[in-house]
Amino acid sequence: MRRLALALLLTVASTPLARAEDGYDLWLRYPRIDDAALLRSYQATVSSILVGGQSATSRIVADELTRGLTGLLGANVPVSRDLARDGTLVAGTPASSSVIADAALGAELRTIGDEGYLIRSSRVRGTRVTLIAANSDVGVLHGAFHFLRLLQTHQRIDALSVADYPRIQHRILDHWDNLDGSVERGYAGRSLWDWFKLPDYESPRLADYARANASLGINGTVLTNVNANATSLTPPYLVKVAALADVFRPYGLRVYLTARFSAPIEIGGLKTADPLDAQVRAWWHAKTDEIYRLIPDFGGFLVKANSEGQPGPQDYHRTHADGANMLADAVAPHGGIVMWRAFVYSETGNDRHKQAYTEFQPLDGAFRPNVLLQVKNGAIDFQPREPFHPLFGAMPRTPLMLELQITKEYLGFATHLVYLAPLFEEVLRADTYAKGEGSLVSKVIDGSLHGYTQTGIAGVANTGTDRNWCGSVFACANWHAFGRLAWNPTLSSADLADEWLRMTFTNNAAFVATVKQMMLSSRQAAVDYMTPLGLHHQMARGHHYGPGPWVAGGARADQTSVYYNRADALGLGFDRTETGTNAVSQYAAPVRDRFASLDRVGEDYLLWFHHVPWTYKMASGQSLWNELTARYCRGVESVRGMEGVWRGLEPFVDAERFDETRSFLAIQEKEARWWRDASILYFQTFSKQPIAPDACGPPADTLEHFMSINLRYVPGTNP
Amino acid sequence: MRRLALALLLTVASTPLARAEDGYDLWLRYPRIDDAALLRSYQATVSSILVGGQSATSRIVADELTRGLTGLLGANVPVSRDLARDGTLVAGTPASSSVIADAALGAELRTIGDEGYLIRSSRVRGTRVTLIAANSDVGVLHGAFHFLRLLQTHQRIDALSVADYPRIQHRILDHWDNLDGSVERGYAGRSLWDWFKLPDYESPRLADYARANASLGINGTVLTNVNANATSLTPPYLVKVAALADVFRPYGLRVYLTARFSAPIEIGGLKTADPLDAQVRAWWHAKTDEIYRLIPDFGGFLVKANSEGQPGPQDYHRTHADGANMLADAVAPHGGIVMWRAFVYSETGNDRHKQAYTEFQPLDGAFRPNVLLQVKNGAIDFQPREPFHPLFGAMPRTPLMLELQITKEYLGFATHLVYLAPLFEEVLRADTYAKGEGSLVSKVIDGSLHGYTQTGIAGVANTGTDRNWCGSVFACANWHAFGRLAWNPTLSSADLADEWLRMTFTNNAAFVATVKQMMLSSRQAAVDYMTPLGLHHQMARGHHYGPGPWVAGGARADQTSVYYNRADALGLGFDRTETGTNAVSQYAAPVRDRFASLDRVGEDYLLWFHHVPWTYKMASGQSLWNELTARYCRGVESVRGMEGVWRGLEPFVDAERFDETRSFLAIQEKEARWWRDASILYFQTFSKQPIAPDACGPPADTLEHFMSINLRYVPGTNP
Repeated sequence: MRRLALALLLTVASTPLARAEDGYDLWLRYPRIDDAALLRSYQATVSSILVGGQSATSRIVADELTRGLTGLLGANVPVSRDLARDGTLVAGTPASSSVIADAALGAELRTIGDEGYLIRSSRVRGTRVTLIAANSDVGVLHGAFHFLRLLQTHQRIDALSVADYPRIQHRILDHWDNLDGSVERGYAGRSLWDWFKLPDYESPRLADYARANASLGINGTVLTNVNANATSLTPPYLVKVAALADVFRPYGLRVYLTARFSAPIEIGGLKTADPLDAQVRAWWHAKTDEIYRLIPDFGGFLVKANSEGQPGPQDYHRTHADGANMLADAVAPHGGIVMWRAFVYSETGNDRHKQAYTEFQPLDGAFRPNVLLQVKNGAIDFQPREPFHPLFGAMPRTPLMLELQITKEYLGFATHLVYLAPLFEEVLRADTYAKGEGSLVSKVIDGSLHGYTQTGIAGVANTGTDRNWCGSVFACANWHAFGRLAWNPTLSSADLADEWLRMTFTNNAAFVATVKQMMLSSRQAAVDYMTPLGLHHQMARGHHYGPGPWVAGGARADQTSVYYNRADALGLGFDRTETGTNAVSQYAAPVRDRFASLDRVGEDYLLWFHHVPWTYKMASGQSLWNELTARYCRGVESVRGMEGVWRGLEPFVDAERFDETRSFLAIQEKEARWWRDASILYFQTFSKQPIAPDACGPPADTLEHFMSINLRYVPGTNP
Repeated sequence: MRRLALALLLTVASTPLARAEDGYDLWLRYPRIDDAALLRSYQATVSSILVGGQSATSRIVADELTRGLTGLLGANVPVSRDLARDGTLVAGTPASSSVIADAALGAELRTIGDEGYLIRSSRVRGTRVTLIAANSDVGVLHGAFHFLRLLQTHQRIDALSVADYPRIQHRILDHWDNLDGSVERGYAGRSLWDWFKLPDYESPRLADYARANASLGINGTVLTNVNANATSLTPPYLVKVAALADVFRPYGLRVYLTARFSAPIEIGGLKTADPLDAQVRAWWHAKTDEIYRLIPDFGGFLVKANSEGQPGPQDYHRTHADGANMLADAVAPHGGIVMWRAFVYSETGNDRHKQAYTEFQPLDGAFRPNVLLQVKNGAIDFQPREPFHPLFGAMPRTPLMLELQITKEYLGFATHLVYLAPLFEEVLRADTYAKGEGSLVSKVIDGSLHGYTQTGIAGVANTGTDRNWCGSVFACANWHAFGRLAWNPTLSSADLADEWLRMTFTNNAAFVATVKQMMLSSRQAAVDYMTPLGLHHQMARGHHYGPGPWVAGGARADQTSVYYNRADALGLGFDRTETGTNAVSQYAAPVRDRFASLDRVGEDYLLWFHHVPWTYKMASGQSLWNELTARYCRGVESVRGMEGVWRGLEPFVDAERFDETRSFLAIQEKEARWWRDASILYFQTFSKQPIAPDACGPPADTLEHFMSINLRYVPGTNP
């Protein structure tokens, strides 16, 4: 990597500095193409724009193509009224554009659904054109962004034959945003929804938010926190929600709300929220009808029930299916869906790892067709690394949607550079073996494995009012990666990083190669300095920032660190084999057997499934203890490597984004050392072994010091 | 106004639209001069820049002049290394610049102090130059902003002879910012201080904040809320404060902190905070020394003590002077000051209006020389209109500083367009008669009336992380007005509005005249639709948004509305004459006699000082009741007038700022009606008289409806 950076430095002398940027433009910057030959070829291919239709979406398509091409080509690209000359970019549907109709793309259009698109280099009526064709205006918009992306990433556009469509139906951002403007686990400022000024004022930023999502293909947004507030369902707030829906609609973005299960009591004046109570059912039907009168394309409800103190159907001795189906019946006449979260762990005696499966798997087939069960990628909670959730593959008759976390609750908040595409890719490519080899999680959630009729994927958003949207420029790569994988879960993290870098910074090949490598290795770095070798849930209590392997006590053992690390004089790790909690039994046999085997489990999940002696001999030949301390230090060194690489890239990056990343990497390095020092000192009290000398040096302070650190006013924590 | 707007429309046809702007640049936009003749004359006068010195401040001067002139003149204005040619703009001190030294300005420089400046069109060494000269680099910076302002407002610059200096020593923004990032009574997003990332990351916005303040001459910033948190004085936070101080220092901006009086207990481990206790005194001395080691130019402390639940010296049966002097002794060796707030009203039996005077006036002369007593403009709390505070003029031996509120806690938050310069001007020009006619409040606070050796003025800041800084573009006019009046309290609100409009929008004369008139009338509009005729404190409880004339009960009567409106079957208003609380007795005789006289008090303060019968005949010939309802409607109509005027100005304003203001005026109109409807319906229950038909029509809903409104999640309120 360092060699690449050096090569880069040697070639950059003549490149002018980019203009100052603050990250607001995300991956939708349209700087003039700086490769003269390429610029000429683009200019020869596209010299005017012809967009069919008069809808709000069509206007957005025309505006985006004009803005993009004018910027990229460095000259005004005019909008035509008809097909006047060679080099026209034509965008539309057969209904909105006679040129598209004349192109006779009917057969191909039938393969791409409502949201997909075709891009073709072609001739129509004897004129050389590039066509962006779709079955809907929103499909055209997606195609327009795809076309611009080709130019942004310096690809050829003179012989195009693209057909693309989303592999997953519901591609959704979950905002854990509260009505007071705070964002639970949000590290990028306040909520983008200014409830107090809505519906009377709609900040231009709202359309920019929708635009960014549309550019990725995200088509839904849950506006409110899963730890829900029934007030969001009252008339004054529904009018505000409708105002947001009006802004988002032309971008193909539907709004959803979280439904607090006890809302019939809290805002409905009923005495119960029992899902089988006729009055309760009538209340939800009426409430749903009220919502759809204001928002005809309202997406539906997301529900966290009987989880971490939220009310739910079990309060009335009903099942999750009873609760979900009641809401599903209310939204079904309007075409809405219910996303019911599987994140539950109310039993205190049982391994938290097992509880979602235990509660939900027996309900397979009991849900209405418009219910999707929303399952986190792993069985604990968005840890730096988790094995895939055992529910995937285990509910063939219930559409499972995947819930990922884009905001870095457990991964260093805004400042740590941790690119999540490799994490997302790891779970999507995990093989459940539910129907034999190749039963990937991605095939579960795209519906192909079990023939689901509803498919979905959700990401817990990392957006906020910070100017750069995500708290850091690099954190926005995770929004981008989520959105693109939601559209097509088979994309690779390397390709996504490549694309994001080119669009966000520069197409300079050496810069892209260098920073891509840094991004792709960053997630493993975080695993190493936070929770190596399958450790998990080792963070400080409550706010979840910084190390806390000693966290113990409190209301629930399974919200402590010691519950998960099981450190003792013999060794470290959580025995989830038959001799332990037998959580492995929830996986299909080949997976179960691999996880259960100390030899075959692999080092990534070693301490996740096994309690391993300190003296256990690792693949490296070292003892577990020495391997553990080495891994922590390896994480620190990775961050130091990123710092060094970034320092060398100053000539290629505008000052503001360069300085932000430099400062944040320095924070990350400091805190990686904090994690390493605190963790190994704590575990040493059990291993009783010396810390082998390494590049990280002796811990900078005592265990007592690290244990006494008590951060206050930490972002993302509810008051 | 409408005629002006029309004239404007007729002349604008050929003017191109301004580029899209979001308000971030405040009044420091430097668009190319659009008057060709003027542009030529400027170009002839200034063609290069020569800045003396190597300090950080000198670099800022050079950067600002380059940025400003390059923008305004539409061409690169180079920085020279020496006096090479006619048309050089020379900026520096006699020490930093040999050109300035050669100009022999010694005598004049002696008249302008440390922060003032001279601007001269001159010849030095035979070369035609413009000089910006000062005794310090910060003085040069102030002069540079003044010079740029001349161009921004299209004034001549070819025969300059300016000498300017601040009339008040401590010109300070008070930030009511909490360590969790919330801002008490803040309506512009979150705190600008990102405590969690400090000291490791300093957002570029911090320097922009300091730059904006420097452009006005503001020289101090209290970073923390007067409702103080001792944690801000702990070592981890002091390091963060020091990082902010380092960013602000080159702009001439000192940092201050609020001192929680009980800090010695809360973070010092002492059993008492008694100001006469030796350990307590030693603790504050040590704490202060610790602060000055990190921040050698730390400004000092602001204290809210024994007020609204805050701890203070009275908890130990000591006086405010005992408390203030203890802190003053600690900061004195370092040149620091203590600002002690006079905002107290702990006695429950006494008119709140009288209590600050009662508590503090007897302490005149009892404070150390480095204590300033910080007095709000009026005796209640930043109401839309208040008579000047009776302490002004009453403490000749104690420096009184004026506390104004820039954030619009009681004036419609971010969305109501209420220009505060007329309010500020009204109090500054109020005559205390303390030493006979002409004893203006401005002369009290600039020290000239009583010969104060310390002088100060503070404004409660309205800044936050909103992109436009202040929650609305027009709210930033209040930051500007405060800063400029702090520098020179004799400036007129009309001139300030004129200057701000030219710098913020355009020099188009008709636009400026039209919007200036709108701004200057906006404060009276708010008085009329919220609290006409001297009514005060009639807002909703807690969050203070919207009408609540019915608010009663609770812990303290003097935090209710009925305490202040005293509505009954006979009439309305608070008798503060001899027959009432006799608060008038706290004013000097001529003022007292005027306020006490029903005939001479004037309609602005009528109900502030008198309980007036519903049938009382007003100057208009109408009864009080009819005048009251007419005033409310007049306020509504004023807002409608602003809406109409603004609609006509669309051709002159970029879309984003135009739409924001249009939307906010619509909110203001709706809420002005809300205030009017709710208030007159409530008072009608006492007057028992019909509402005369007026342009506002019958109230839109019932009193019960208005009383049932219970806003939640209102910005600016602590959880």
